[in-house]
Amino acid sequence: MVQNADMPTALRLHAPMALPCDPDCSVIRDAVVDVDGTGRITYCGPRRGAPERPHDVTVRECGGILLPGLINAHAHSPMTLLRGMGADLPLLRWLNEVIFPAEARLRPSDVRAGMELGCVEMLRAGVTTSAEMYFITESMVEATLAVGSRAVLATAVIDTPALEALGGWRGAVEGIDRWIDADGLRFGPGERIELAYGPHSAYLLPPEALQTIGESAQQRGALVHTHVAETVGEDAAQREEYGSVPALLDKLGLLEGRLIAAHGVHLSDDDIALFARRGVGVAHCPGSNAKLASGTARLVELLRAGIPVGLGTDGPSSNDDLDLWEEVQLAGLLARTVTGDATALSARSALLAATRGGAEALHRDDLGALEPGRWADIVHLDVDNPAFATGLDAPDEQVLSNVVWAAGSRSVRDVWVAGEEVLNDREPTRVDRRTVQAAARTAAQHVRG
Amino acid sequence: MVQNADMPTALRLHAPMALPCDPDCSVIRDAVVDVDGTGRITYCGPRRGAPERPHDVTVRECGGILLPGLINAHAHSPMTLLRGMGADLPLLRWLNEVIFPAEARLRPSDVRAGMELGCVEMLRAGVTTSAEMYFITESMVEATLAVGSRAVLATAVIDTPALEALGGWRGAVEGIDRWIDADGLRFGPGERIELAYGPHSAYLLPPEALQTIGESAQQRGALVHTHVAETVGEDAAQREEYGSVPALLDKLGLLEGRLIAAHGVHLSDDDIALFARRGVGVAHCPGSNAKLASGTARLVELLRAGIPVGLGTDGPSSNDDLDLWEEVQLAGLLARTVTGDATALSARSALLAATRGGAEALHRDDLGALEPGRWADIVHLDVDNPAFATGLDAPDEQVLSNVVWAAGSRSVRDVWVAGEEVLNDREPTRVDRRTVQAAARTAAQHVRG
Repeated sequence: MVQNADMPTALRLHAPMALPCDPDCSVIRDAVVDVDGTGRITYCGPRRGAPERPHDVTVRECGGILLPGLINAHAHSPMTLLRGMGADLPLLRWLNEVIFPAEARLRPSDVRAGMELGCVEMLRAGVTTSAEMYFITESMVEATLAVGSRAVLATAVIDTPALEALGGWRGAVEGIDRWIDADGLRFGPGERIELAYGPHSAYLLPPEALQTIGESAQQRGALVHTHVAETVGEDAAQREEYGSVPALLDKLGLLEGRLIAAHGVHLSDDDIALFARRGVGVAHCPGSNAKLASGTARLVELLRAGIPVGLGTDGPSSNDDLDLWEEVQLAGLLARTVTGDATALSARSALLAATRGGAEALHRDDLGALEPGRWADIVHLDVDNPAFATGLDAPDEQVLSNVVWAAGSRSVRDVWVAGEEVLNDREPTRVDRRTVQAAARTAAQHVRG
Repeated sequence: MVQNADMPTALRLHAPMALPCDPDCSVIRDAVVDVDGTGRITYCGPRRGAPERPHDVTVRECGGILLPGLINAHAHSPMTLLRGMGADLPLLRWLNEVIFPAEARLRPSDVRAGMELGCVEMLRAGVTTSAEMYFITESMVEATLAVGSRAVLATAVIDTPALEALGGWRGAVEGIDRWIDADGLRFGPGERIELAYGPHSAYLLPPEALQTIGESAQQRGALVHTHVAETVGEDAAQREEYGSVPALLDKLGLLEGRLIAAHGVHLSDDDIALFARRGVGVAHCPGSNAKLASGTARLVELLRAGIPVGLGTDGPSSNDDLDLWEEVQLAGLLARTVTGDATALSARSALLAATRGGAEALHRDDLGALEPGRWADIVHLDVDNPAFATGLDAPDEQVLSNVVWAAGSRSVRDVWVAGEEVLNDREPTRVDRRTVQAAARTAAQHVRG
């Protein structure tokens, strides 16, 4: 049978358990997930309620647990090439003496190599979608499509002298405008690529730039991905003039559109209320914030206010990997530490933040859950390991706890994106992992200078 | 050639890198580790300085990084059987409604099954030694020897009505006394087992019991393993009468001997100074303390005072696994969060806490480092994965950072204990992992009741 790579054959997955990540985070036993020829889910539920099996469907028996692919809501994945550089230096010395000079050496081929490595690393951790903010976005697209994962690619916009030669921030924004106008907001097989705007932050861009970006994005229905309130004092000027960065972004109209605020560590009560009113998404990055001693975002309050919260790894140069399972656990551990409440962030809430919550924070209703109509981005967790030795016959709460608190990325076995298997038995299917690692090593040697 | 299981053939390991975990945490490139027929290290250093190769040595070429086996300084490993039970309940309801009733159902065969699973899980995370506090210690010994790992086994002593029928705390202590007097403090191939005293805590035992245990232990050179200052208020009575639990333990003479204090979250400045003067070890359990919202131990101050600090997972029923790599990272992340200093706990310090520091906290100078005379408990980290894609040719600091912050337990490939390979390519050599998992599942079904 001839297969069209863009239109995979319909697929049926059987598994003893599925976690669809519906709002209740329910547990389905003896589960079936059906995927149509376009790569979208048509059914997820118990086998006895499944539709009659089509004639030409491919059936796959899975021995473990099916759940939606995790969503990394804030990443700079090509920084895999810089992983561990300047470790243990204070933040500003690390940035100025190590990271910025290294990034200045990055060529398009390096960004591609670093992003390919990042995509492979993420698939092995069950992350099917990453929301990226970086530069040389063409190379990011190539890498994502090569590996077969999914990405929301925000081109970073900063008001720096280096950018002046390229037309300044205005030129950068117009470049994104033209690209979306030419290729559409989403493209690639299974709509694997979404383009977005990445104004770095309110403290590195003038209000006029932010406003222009907001208008461009809203005209095109595009996402704006920006850093907000990551560290104490970074936004002192904006606080003094506008009250806070969220208040400034609101004044400039950016909160009317699709916006995701990365970090949000130092949001005030007013900021949280404003974000909730405007439906702004937040990418909570507990590991990065802890490692860089930036503080701990008020996760429990953000969720209580009804803000869509996803989880992000931030760049792997500092965090130091793209393993979102670690962020799931850290989100819980830090929420409990700062609140003093051992029941803060249940296993269900933590899992939803990494899946459905990430999709909501990115303003995407076609990702993050195993529900009819959404893309078939699916993870198969292997349960043949000590983390699950108490058995899938344990009560739902216990198995959910094992998934969230004990399994970790080491249990991820197979991954599908838009119904296409892109990771099989921990190895990527479209690229050779060792070739990707070797290319990253060569690129890393170059950026070390 | 006939091999005596107690006296393995001399072994030489070659690897591109070794981290011996000497006090400077130095990095050896093109390394050789030699092990004699008794299972002890005779050389660890560069290949060009290595002694002439003996005739009958087994040579093993390792492609990655060699380092000492990690030491889990505080665990209740058979609680693998209870993993995830009662998740998300408040602490006291979780203990009284779920954990205590389940533990009351534990039979010797269950403890053995849970401990075997724990030992396998720990070997897969590169943990060669665990300091346990639990009961039915005979089953703990059987399990540890079956898997081939190493353990310091403290029999828990609590002053409970249930223990009255067995002679109360005094009967329990006399049982430990008799066992050590009969079998010696350490026994088994490669001295894999060390017996110890496990008075649960000063708030669950009368001072007389603590004093008696201290005297029994010191007569035998044995370790005392106890919980200290885990939660706020648990020791209110002791604080009121003696100032603090450390002051009480000092008054009763226990700090003169080998003592390891688990948790130590709420130690005062005076407590820290006292522990430092007396050379008391601390088992820092950042994951457990965070998950149960107990607080964060003052790791930086403990280390600055010169206290030997190891890292512990605590019981896998709450934490929820025995992966000490996660504790290494958490120790760093939480230290940075509570101090606000992004340079708190360097990669070197974190690695040393999990190895050499754990040995020092257990008052053992024969573990925790690749140094002549110490037991050849060795981990081989696989570098064929994205975490190490920037290459072993990167500067020492960068590779160390990759080991500590990015590698994780998923990089552990092979493990030796006393020179015997007990994990090969992630699978235990002495037991079949699936058989161990199946036995644990049966036991877990029993304890769920």
